[in-house]
Amino acid sequence: MITSDIDRLIHLLARLPGLGPRSARRAALYLLKRRESVMQPLAEALQRAAASVRVCGVCGNLDTEDPCAICANASRDRRQICVVQDIGDLWAIERTGAFRGLYHVVGGTLSALDGVRPEDLNLESLGRRAAAPAVEEVILALPATVDGQTTAHYIADLLAPGSARVTRLARGVPMGGELDYMDDGTLQLALRARSPL
Amino acid sequence: MITSDIDRLIHLLARLPGLGPRSARRAALYLLKRRESVMQPLAEALQRAAASVRVCGVCGNLDTEDPCAICANASRDRRQICVVQDIGDLWAIERTGAFRGLYHVVGGTLSALDGVRPEDLNLESLGRRAAAPAVEEVILALPATVDGQTTAHYIADLLAPGSARVTRLARGVPMGGELDYMDDGTLQLALRARSPL
Repeated sequence: MITSDIDRLIHLLARLPGLGPRSARRAALYLLKRRESVMQPLAEALQRAAASVRVCGVCGNLDTEDPCAICANASRDRRQICVVQDIGDLWAIERTGAFRGLYHVVGGTLSALDGVRPEDLNLESLGRRAAAPAVEEVILALPATVDGQTTAHYIADLLAPGSARVTRLARGVPMGGELDYMDDGTLQLALRARSPL
Repeated sequence: MITSDIDRLIHLLARLPGLGPRSARRAALYLLKRRESVMQPLAEALQRAAASVRVCGVCGNLDTEDPCAICANASRDRRQICVVQDIGDLWAIERTGAFRGLYHVVGGTLSALDGVRPEDLNLESLGRRAAAPAVEEVILALPATVDGQTTAHYIADLLAPGSARVTRLARGVPMGGELDYMDDGTLQLALRARSPL
């Protein structure tokens, strides 16, 4: 006997990644008990973001402006382009504060299994951007998965005729990583790529 | 460099139970990629539910009507009132389809630690409802925790002068429960309350 308005809300909340039917019910109840403080503001934030946010025509980032704030920022280093699979990865790198260059969101990885071909990714404009004389380095920050690495190699081949160096993120034991919990592949890689202390 | 509209959305999503900062970012990205199919409908569902849903003045349930659809349903058994801690518990019992009586949401459990006193709970109207001649049984479906049981005993004492029977949910091994994963208290209880096969 859940009223259809609540039912619909639960149904839509359950579509969010990380929320199943049970947690969607909990979330709906939480919201209904905090109508003024959370529910209304969330509804407005959704509406505002849905109306204002657009895809950056240069790099594929999401922002209220096109080009996005990163592409438009004159103080960013235009010599480096960091290639990421998805905007979430762009956000992750931005949070580190360790990169001051530009980005390029390719929007996925090549996958024979899922039928993702080169033309399904945002690669054509990457070729054009990387060919600009100002660009000295293209950093491939793609996932360390089979598909991610296939994509990295495909992009490296694509950009090989250009003058920009193509690099990729380092592999090894992550910070705080316990060796006996690490998979064999990572350990082998870390051993081979060992560096002087 | 996350734009403030997206930032605000992430911040509000992170307040939902079950979503932390990381999953809130994932959810925001998921929504921004599905503006037509999920984001707008969710914004509208939130707004509609916030405007339409109210607390039932009789039992404390949430519904678009007051009294709620359960209290107003003439085919429900008016001889039984099931006392629950929260609306989520009411929904859980409704999903079983095993109960056709009415509910009473007390809104919490007594807790010395959290400073929840009897006057903080929806108990006064429970006393009045249980005193109605039609009511034959009050089922205490409160959590099997210390606070839940304190509350159950408090309510049983409160209703003792009345004519309605006060019962509580059975205790024992849950369906599919493996005995060697069960806590000692549950096993002791299940052994003591054993029933003929």
